[in-house]
Amino acid sequence: MTSVVELGERAKAASRLLATASTSTKNAALLTAADLLLERAAEIQAANEADLAAARADGMAAGPLDRLRLTDARLQGMASGLRTVAGLADPVGEVLDGWKRPNGLQITRVRVPLGVIAIIYENRPNVTSDAAGLCVKAGNAALLRGSSSALRSNVAVASVLRDALAKHALPEDAIILVEDTAYETATQVMQLTDYVDCLIPRGGPSLIKSILDNAKVPVIIDGDGNCHVYVDASADLDEAARIVVNAKTQRPSVCNAAESLVVHASVADAFVPRIADVLHEQGVELVGDSEAQCRSLHIDAATDDDYGREYSDLKLSIAIAPDLDAAIAHVNHYGTGHTEAILTRDLDAARRFTREVDAAAVVVNASTRFTDGEEFGFGAEIGISTQKLHARGPMGLRELTTYKYLVYGSGQVRE
Amino acid sequence: MTSVVELGERAKAASRLLATASTSTKNAALLTAADLLLERAAEIQAANEADLAAARADGMAAGPLDRLRLTDARLQGMASGLRTVAGLADPVGEVLDGWKRPNGLQITRVRVPLGVIAIIYENRPNVTSDAAGLCVKAGNAALLRGSSSALRSNVAVASVLRDALAKHALPEDAIILVEDTAYETATQVMQLTDYVDCLIPRGGPSLIKSILDNAKVPVIIDGDGNCHVYVDASADLDEAARIVVNAKTQRPSVCNAAESLVVHASVADAFVPRIADVLHEQGVELVGDSEAQCRSLHIDAATDDDYGREYSDLKLSIAIAPDLDAAIAHVNHYGTGHTEAILTRDLDAARRFTREVDAAAVVVNASTRFTDGEEFGFGAEIGISTQKLHARGPMGLRELTTYKYLVYGSGQVRE
Repeated sequence: MTSVVELGERAKAASRLLATASTSTKNAALLTAADLLLERAAEIQAANEADLAAARADGMAAGPLDRLRLTDARLQGMASGLRTVAGLADPVGEVLDGWKRPNGLQITRVRVPLGVIAIIYENRPNVTSDAAGLCVKAGNAALLRGSSSALRSNVAVASVLRDALAKHALPEDAIILVEDTAYETATQVMQLTDYVDCLIPRGGPSLIKSILDNAKVPVIIDGDGNCHVYVDASADLDEAARIVVNAKTQRPSVCNAAESLVVHASVADAFVPRIADVLHEQGVELVGDSEAQCRSLHIDAATDDDYGREYSDLKLSIAIAPDLDAAIAHVNHYGTGHTEAILTRDLDAARRFTREVDAAAVVVNASTRFTDGEEFGFGAEIGISTQKLHARGPMGLRELTTYKYLVYGSGQVRE
Repeated sequence: MTSVVELGERAKAASRLLATASTSTKNAALLTAADLLLERAAEIQAANEADLAAARADGMAAGPLDRLRLTDARLQGMASGLRTVAGLADPVGEVLDGWKRPNGLQITRVRVPLGVIAIIYENRPNVTSDAAGLCVKAGNAALLRGSSSALRSNVAVASVLRDALAKHALPEDAIILVEDTAYETATQVMQLTDYVDCLIPRGGPSLIKSILDNAKVPVIIDGDGNCHVYVDASADLDEAARIVVNAKTQRPSVCNAAESLVVHASVADAFVPRIADVLHEQGVELVGDSEAQCRSLHIDAATDDDYGREYSDLKLSIAIAPDLDAAIAHVNHYGTGHTEAILTRDLDAARRFTREVDAAAVVVNASTRFTDGEEFGFGAEIGISTQKLHARGPMGLRELTTYKYLVYGSGQVRE
């Protein structure tokens, strides 16, 4: 099987060609890829059936099995995702800024593709086309390393995408799937410093840990979302109840769902019993500190670990904060830098919370669930960064680019 | 001695306070630090003398010894560096963009400090104040891990800087020196994922290798500069000679000095003998391919390794390219993504070279030596990034920041 190093080399060579491809050619290839995904659905779904059969034989649980399945609807979704990306503005070539130096040098800073973006992902074969589409639109080669359980599906999808590139005279190797899914090949991808410009892992805590332990290439971590909703002293409590219920229950498994509720002591009597009743009715398990517990029988005792956890489930921790300072300190201590919301009518409290809370998105009077590429208006997203380097929060096409300086002179030398 | 984890924790706490400090307070502290560096010169230089004596006893070579020395002029330079940084615009708070969503959510993207920036550096105690000054101005805490040989000097300088912060009611712990210089403490800093938002190493290849092997925190690599000057078919050869000499000889030890000359075959006869004579006269050792060698007796045979090397010395490799494509391919193959120059009068060649060459800075008709924070007009720099993630090329204050999204709503929940 082709070595990972050789695949990296080929991706790098392809990235140089793709970097200068025109927007219209890239768009045409993405639209062709969308068409081909549907035209060749039978071939893709046959491969997927083989993956599913092997996974079932291996005793894969229902949740992962569902994520592995390429239903008609999911294939339609992949195709329409590629069409959406084709319709987005091309970030490449944007002049970010420019100026002239006293010696006459003219400097401009221009947005360019990153080069080769590696994606290591688990199980979901739809990531193959979602990620590749975004990478290609931003002028990057995608080096994809999916899981062994989805290998046949990923090979089928990647083959369709590569054919679409070739039909428009773009390099097929702008989308490369690492077909050797031995454990070591993931580590090799993480260490391809000569070829990989950026690695974006899409997976759970064990993948993130392996990245932190092994990666040598630059990484964007799409980490946990232990999101808080803080109900301030001056909050509109009807609105607060609606927002807390939405943030917790509308889709509890995703990273922008709320995991913790912080309530200002002065509204604890009015708000805690009420929200506890509503959430309990909706099947949400509640844990909290003694100040919360004494206000509702639905609340069990919370451990410190509870406050630090992303449940991704119908469970919520509750803390009572004596004042805004304590609330901000609680959020900064337990938060994971994803999304934190304040519900308030007090301008000063809103300003302090937005300034002092350290997170990718700080929300005032709305649900945490809006931190998302689509909801932010990016059209599509490749993940949500919880690190601060390069990209923070939802990552769209812009976050898949870097810049270069162009310096035009007329013979200047340095004295 | 205080553990690195505890130092990280203290830096993080300080960073939260510094993030909301006013520009005028930060500037006042930097100006006080500049004053104190000079007022307390005797104390700093006594510490430095002790470092120098120990280093001499250990047999340190002349070059490193010189870099370790805090002369009066160097202290003046450190003070004036802090004053310059105080005079620069504060990047924090800049609104990068903003928009309204169909559901009424108002989103703005605002520049904020990174948080805790770790700097691991070698030998030069002036980095202590240069790096800390830039970090503090951009609202970050600096966690500094210098070399053991400069420990007494670094302690003295850091103590002055911390006193300056305290005089303006800023947290002293916004500048923390890791005083335990055991080998492991550097590794510990590289792995402080709970506290360090960004690590910027300042040092040679062995430090960079250790970072790639051990770092778990996000890193900006300030790597090699194997910079090329390509003399195109249409170049003004008088101007080209001036630029090549400047790029190679004006300061050969720095990363933006040229290491390699690529000459279009059609001007090889006219340019190679001439430039070889001039460079030879200036003591530059020349190596090249057979096409270059046959044009001057001053050129020895180059190995493949020669083309891939950053000499940082009076040595230059020369290659003859049959055409622009070959020149671009050569530059992309051997370059390190730092600075690449084309000398040409041909618009199309300039446009192709700037578009197709993959480097932080692509220069047309000027010396490579201009890739530098000061020369770019940033006022000061903390290094030159050769990676593509987050920052590329010279890094000033802006590159020491990230952003957060502020989302203002009026009760929006997600359907």
